[in-house]
Amino acid sequence: MFTIGLDYGTNSVRALVVRCSDGAELGSAVFDYPSGRQGVLLDPRDHNLARQHPGDHLRGLEKSVRAALAAAKKQKGFDARRVVGIGVDTTGSSPLPVDKTNTPLALYPKFRDNLHTQCWLWKDHTAHREAARITALAAEHRPRYIAKCGNTYSSEWFWSKIWRCLDIAPRVFAAAHSWVELADWIPSVLAGVRDPAAIRRGVCCAGHKALYADEWGGLPDKEFLALLDPRLAALRDRLYEKAHDATVSAGRLCPRWAGKLGLPAGIPVAIGEMDVHYGAIGSGVAEGTLVKVIGTSTCDCAVVSTRKTVADIPGICGIVRGAILPGYFGIEAGQSAVGDIFKWWVETVCAGDGSLHRRLAAEVAAQKPGRAGLLALDWNNGNRTILVDQRLTGLLLGQTLHTTRAEIYRALIEATAFGARAIVERIRGYGVPVRRIVCAGGIAEKDPMLMQIYADVLGIPMHLAGSSQACALGAAVSAAVLAGEHKDFPAAQRKMTRLKKTVYRPRTAARKTYDRLYALYRKLHDAFGGLDKNADLSAVMKDLLAIKESQS
Amino acid sequence: MFTIGLDYGTNSVRALVVRCSDGAELGSAVFDYPSGRQGVLLDPRDHNLARQHPGDHLRGLEKSVRAALAAAKKQKGFDARRVVGIGVDTTGSSPLPVDKTNTPLALYPKFRDNLHTQCWLWKDHTAHREAARITALAAEHRPRYIAKCGNTYSSEWFWSKIWRCLDIAPRVFAAAHSWVELADWIPSVLAGVRDPAAIRRGVCCAGHKALYADEWGGLPDKEFLALLDPRLAALRDRLYEKAHDATVSAGRLCPRWAGKLGLPAGIPVAIGEMDVHYGAIGSGVAEGTLVKVIGTSTCDCAVVSTRKTVADIPGICGIVRGAILPGYFGIEAGQSAVGDIFKWWVETVCAGDGSLHRRLAAEVAAQKPGRAGLLALDWNNGNRTILVDQRLTGLLLGQTLHTTRAEIYRALIEATAFGARAIVERIRGYGVPVRRIVCAGGIAEKDPMLMQIYADVLGIPMHLAGSSQACALGAAVSAAVLAGEHKDFPAAQRKMTRLKKTVYRPRTAARKTYDRLYALYRKLHDAFGGLDKNADLSAVMKDLLAIKESQS
Repeated sequence: MFTIGLDYGTNSVRALVVRCSDGAELGSAVFDYPSGRQGVLLDPRDHNLARQHPGDHLRGLEKSVRAALAAAKKQKGFDARRVVGIGVDTTGSSPLPVDKTNTPLALYPKFRDNLHTQCWLWKDHTAHREAARITALAAEHRPRYIAKCGNTYSSEWFWSKIWRCLDIAPRVFAAAHSWVELADWIPSVLAGVRDPAAIRRGVCCAGHKALYADEWGGLPDKEFLALLDPRLAALRDRLYEKAHDATVSAGRLCPRWAGKLGLPAGIPVAIGEMDVHYGAIGSGVAEGTLVKVIGTSTCDCAVVSTRKTVADIPGICGIVRGAILPGYFGIEAGQSAVGDIFKWWVETVCAGDGSLHRRLAAEVAAQKPGRAGLLALDWNNGNRTILVDQRLTGLLLGQTLHTTRAEIYRALIEATAFGARAIVERIRGYGVPVRRIVCAGGIAEKDPMLMQIYADVLGIPMHLAGSSQACALGAAVSAAVLAGEHKDFPAAQRKMTRLKKTVYRPRTAARKTYDRLYALYRKLHDAFGGLDKNADLSAVMKDLLAIKESQS
Repeated sequence: MFTIGLDYGTNSVRALVVRCSDGAELGSAVFDYPSGRQGVLLDPRDHNLARQHPGDHLRGLEKSVRAALAAAKKQKGFDARRVVGIGVDTTGSSPLPVDKTNTPLALYPKFRDNLHTQCWLWKDHTAHREAARITALAAEHRPRYIAKCGNTYSSEWFWSKIWRCLDIAPRVFAAAHSWVELADWIPSVLAGVRDPAAIRRGVCCAGHKALYADEWGGLPDKEFLALLDPRLAALRDRLYEKAHDATVSAGRLCPRWAGKLGLPAGIPVAIGEMDVHYGAIGSGVAEGTLVKVIGTSTCDCAVVSTRKTVADIPGICGIVRGAILPGYFGIEAGQSAVGDIFKWWVETVCAGDGSLHRRLAAEVAAQKPGRAGLLALDWNNGNRTILVDQRLTGLLLGQTLHTTRAEIYRALIEATAFGARAIVERIRGYGVPVRRIVCAGGIAEKDPMLMQIYADVLGIPMHLAGSSQACALGAAVSAAVLAGEHKDFPAAQRKMTRLKKTVYRPRTAARKTYDRLYALYRKLHDAFGGLDKNADLSAVMKDLLAIKESQS
């Protein structure tokens, strides 16, 4: 039997056909979103804005699944009639406004060119003021709401974005009957859901991005939402009461989409999760094994059995029961930019291309830790964990008249490794075991030099997920469990996921040097991040932004 | 009547033929030093090392003067027999070891390839350990010695370099009968001096670089020097007892060099001064007029009448009676890298050339102050004034994923302007008036965008020296006064120097923005420079260097 995993990324969607017995990947296809710049709708006047067109998502759904099935059909033993389930992951929080028929506003001609009707992509930061206001209001009125997300509600998240839409485009807000995370909307499309109230929402997005928790009755209460805006309180009635973990199905494949895709109607559609969460499953996440997806940004996923108690961990994006694996608390952390920082350095500053990336990487590999005398903060896109502050900015220190671009490139890689270490130290400090790290994502696979630096900085063995499509594989694993092909997730993971043979182990000498450098990194981190109250530098980055924003 | 000014720079020497009555420049010629990299001998294993070959200086002397005279001869009314004096400026502190015949050791075949026998160029920083030791010993035993140079003795200066030679090349030290600043040595060559004891030394180098002051009997006493090393105490007897201001002649042009150059023998040779000091004279330095020479690094010169009292100013390179203008205290400050930082950014990091410099400058000119949200420290080559610490390093803050190379270029220009402001604020704070700034140097002439940024940051009108060869002109002015063509320096300056018509005046809006940015610059400056004791960041740059140096 086979399942299909769909992985909606920032620039493209991928479909993967997987054999349930052993996880073999029989066919795969990618569809690049045609709209905007590499699929992202931008506003040249506002760098914070990033949207996606839901029409791209629908076209990509059909095209990628059809192409993946066509590829799988070339493999012996495959038959599309033996596909028993389908699972979906997407970026998140990426909410979109829909009308009463569960149709995205952006699909109507009158709204087609309105950026606010589109899917508000995860990396859209236009709502930073709203986020700060939600954080302040929650701190005053409902501290428990934000205790599980590091006491800071992010501009990247559900309520910030919807409130921002209300502020800046009230007619769009008024036209929206409901808002749905992309991770919930795609499964609802597959299941033929024509009423937003009937969408089965995943606890993954709900818990991590929308302040949902069973213990306080689901989404934030209306009294609290009314403090934001009475219209948000009213919206709550048109959202959802209950969100589900991956033991619950999002529905069954509707005849219309079964026909479009060439799949059997009625097969189960797994509940939607965010890409990294299904990616964690596809990479073998388990207690003690942290999964790190390294891409444009980084996401860390860890799990702890719900039989244990997990304290709130300051600065961690979220601790949500059932968010990753049923039966476990899902713990998510992440860095706002990793690959994006390297790309910025090589392509924007050095004006180079892929070949320069490779040349610099070769130079970096020949350098020794500490030899360049450089130190950087990895905050070019803010700090998601552990400072939870999108308005922090980058810093580079130690440059002389002899510093080279390759040395700076290495310092930026090291900065992201230090940021990764700050996350691991924080969650370990609250009792979450981290004995090994499994990495997924293109950068992890293609850059052994980076992996070795991470191992040396973190002092933890670094593994690679066996599949290059860990997110799509995880979605397929979820579908396989739902279809009854395996008794539970751990059993499915044992059969369907694996690690690559390569392991990057910490080297003693490099590790010692990095311990010293990390101590300096933490000084800068704590001073500019506001943890060190004596330093009086915590306001410098914000003051600079205030000056920037006061210039017309 | 005419005089000749000779200006020994880092990469070349220039000769300038000047008419005494009005400062008209009749002929000029440049000789590029043939040795090393653009005239600088380097050690690929030690970025701190920078030397010059005295053979280059001698060849350049003959070639440049001959060529300048040839050019002048094309002008109506010029006759080499009417040249009445010659003046010399050089970089400094740039000492070289000589034997008993005043011959540089480097001119002997056996020493030709020994870097330690060469002229130790101003920007050689190999002696930072010795400098720190001198600072510590003086603080303990002779605080007044360093009170006038900001309480810190620099690795760039006379005693640091000689002590370093003793440490690292004791045989070279032993072979040296004496050490002479290049600014004193070239005039001594012209005057035919064959005994180091007979060299007339200028108080400019002596006072600013060698801890010389009449009030304590000249150079540091032998008891103090013996604390450094008894051999340095012994050397004192072979240096000099008295140093002179520019009212005293270095000697008269000897027949041998008169013949080589094609000039009348016996004309007076002005006392040697450092380039920026004669440059200040050539730019019209006066009380209230600060002269800023902007090149690879920057030097600021101000004067205050000796009829007034000037307090020691913390962090200022030197306050020396008669060092620039006779009858005035000469006050010198400076930034360790300015043009060098822009060159590093464009050529080393961006891998560009002159055309990229121009492209980036055009982009920078279109940017508004504060709009990029960036802030930098101008310490890529340490901080000469007001922190007097060569082991500080660069810092860039505020970068996002959208920051461009041109924005960083502008931030680096602004950083040097903020550094300039820190200097002006410091000397004003100690009663030295600064009502206008006259700039000299190629960057000032070629970069109106930079000049406007400086005016906006400093809040002071910025003028340009009338001559592009202000240093050589100042040397020629000194020779004209010595030859009796003018009654004193102010009279000579009135006739022989002028300003360009262009004036850069502070613009109110930009100035307000820069006031805010400068406040943030000072936060970083004081935290990382050690002035803010609460910040606990003052050690970060040093710790990073310690880690760097501990890696083999």
